[in-house]
Amino acid sequence: MPLPVLEQMQRDLIALPDVGMSILEISHRSRTFESILAQAEADIRALADIPSNYRVLFLQGGASLQFSMVPMNLLTEGTTAEYIDSGSWANKAIKEAKKVGSVRVAASTKQDDYNRIPASSEISISPGSAYVHMTSNNTIEGTEWQTLPATGDVPLVSDTSSDMFSRPLDVRKHALIYAGAQKNMGPAGLTVVIIRDDLLERSQARAATLPTMLNYAVHAENRSLYNTPPVFAVYATGLVMKWLLAQGGLAAIASINWRKATTLYAEIDRTGFYRSTAAKDSRSLMNVTFRLPDESLETLFVKESSAAGLDGLKGHRAVGGMRASIYNAFPEAGVEALAEFMREFERVHG
Amino acid sequence: MPLPVLEQMQRDLIALPDVGMSILEISHRSRTFESILAQAEADIRALADIPSNYRVLFLQGGASLQFSMVPMNLLTEGTTAEYIDSGSWANKAIKEAKKVGSVRVAASTKQDDYNRIPASSEISISPGSAYVHMTSNNTIEGTEWQTLPATGDVPLVSDTSSDMFSRPLDVRKHALIYAGAQKNMGPAGLTVVIIRDDLLERSQARAATLPTMLNYAVHAENRSLYNTPPVFAVYATGLVMKWLLAQGGLAAIASINWRKATTLYAEIDRTGFYRSTAAKDSRSLMNVTFRLPDESLETLFVKESSAAGLDGLKGHRAVGGMRASIYNAFPEAGVEALAEFMREFERVHG
Repeated sequence: MPLPVLEQMQRDLIALPDVGMSILEISHRSRTFESILAQAEADIRALADIPSNYRVLFLQGGASLQFSMVPMNLLTEGTTAEYIDSGSWANKAIKEAKKVGSVRVAASTKQDDYNRIPASSEISISPGSAYVHMTSNNTIEGTEWQTLPATGDVPLVSDTSSDMFSRPLDVRKHALIYAGAQKNMGPAGLTVVIIRDDLLERSQARAATLPTMLNYAVHAENRSLYNTPPVFAVYATGLVMKWLLAQGGLAAIASINWRKATTLYAEIDRTGFYRSTAAKDSRSLMNVTFRLPDESLETLFVKESSAAGLDGLKGHRAVGGMRASIYNAFPEAGVEALAEFMREFERVHG
Repeated sequence: MPLPVLEQMQRDLIALPDVGMSILEISHRSRTFESILAQAEADIRALADIPSNYRVLFLQGGASLQFSMVPMNLLTEGTTAEYIDSGSWANKAIKEAKKVGSVRVAASTKQDDYNRIPASSEISISPGSAYVHMTSNNTIEGTEWQTLPATGDVPLVSDTSSDMFSRPLDVRKHALIYAGAQKNMGPAGLTVVIIRDDLLERSQARAATLPTMLNYAVHAENRSLYNTPPVFAVYATGLVMKWLLAQGGLAAIASINWRKATTLYAEIDRTGFYRSTAAKDSRSLMNVTFRLPDESLETLFVKESSAAGLDGLKGHRAVGGMRASIYNAFPEAGVEALAEFMREFERVHG
């Protein structure tokens, strides 16, 4: 969380200015909250240049619930959904979709331990498919799409949980975008869904059997107020959106993120002591993954970096190694400190 | 929200004591959050005297998502679920359950505009049913169960969203209890589920087809950390639980709530100017509903009470009239002020 956002929340926690009640107490049917919700939506629309034929929904349950909601709403009987298997989370999405209907894997880099994004030549999409599902950034493996796959007329659905609003995003090339808020947007407990109007017809067509809370059309018709939304998380996300706009928007934050990631990758590539696990053309700006010459050095690296105040560098248990997660709010000074630590660690142990 | 809880959250918002990071920034996999989650669960267990063969789950999606999760997990093929139709929310639960499987209405007071809880003589439960579903407090109609229905060997499932932790609760008589946190427990965005171990077998048996995020057994096995939980809402709810324990627990808060509601019902019953809409033996301690002699007086009552700083007294649009929602955190002084306003309003307009 950006510090100015935390400070504003702290200042206003007991009573919102001109309201006299806490954001934790106001009704979700109050004018105050309606205005907070509308402003958060307007700022998201401005930030990502969202066309008017897309709806912005504020939901709950995280990307994990979207793994089910996407096929439950969009995987029409008699059609097949195409999934691009680019990492551990993409693979989880596939498993959930298979519970719902017919799924085809349009490309996979599993055989390469997901160390890269599939090349466009490897991706085959059948015309007439229900949709194509991709995962824009793979947090565990440290890879990120650099350009969107060509899907023709097939609607593109993207899980952007870990890089939404870290860089510009071409909404028009997507039919549905979803993201748990907790990486770059706000607190855990809010899921943002951006959905193109025409897809809502598929949800409406199955309203008789689809659970109401899992129906995109219901949330769109009720402007995310079908039931009580996560009021505080919407408020906090709204403040982060204001902060992002004040930074200059997505192009500005992307150039900061590019500088941060480039600093670390330059250090990784400098001598060969560190080894990047992601292919160069697939490297993530959010999660920088790397290995050391052996596991005992990796254990030592985690221990010493933690002692130096650089926490959370241990890679995901599924893949091992190191991972620096440098989301929007992670300061450039922190990246400089890590690069400096890496140089010194190599000097002593290299 | 109790003021001391808001004050503590404000004090610690930028950095939790001895942690150095905000509750809005810590990882849900951190030791800090694991300890917050474990403490919140321990305090809920202490408050409600929850036996060890029940699990406490911290979920998302509100009671509305539980309307679907309950039948998706518990309504086994070839069995029927019994629903007690005691109010508008109970009726919504029935509609969602019917999308999932076979439902029978065990009793209904719809013909009486839900102005009372069904008498035990009206409730017929078929042995061997999948479960019985009830709604412990009906917010819109202002009625509340005074004693639990006898369900024999059929598991009792209760939506306690609007009165959980406002009074003692006999967990042992339930198989599953669920509640959106936002009335008496904490911020919107958290749903607490208390489920008896043996019911988890039904969830496990359908793991192949049930969406993972909607499977109670998955959340129980992962101690509510299958995916990112609503970290801040769990933290805030934990603080409210500590506050409730400091008040003396559920018996103590119930006696305060009883005093608050009794003050208002006494005023309503005093002369006949006000008319209680709920039957006397069904009156809610949380939502006190009443009418005035005519609708123009009701409009005036809303306007003048609001001008006097007594907000939110307009009844739900579905039923009209007045409603005073006096949840745990609503102060006794506020109830006294409302009773005083009612007397004065009657003196002028009666």
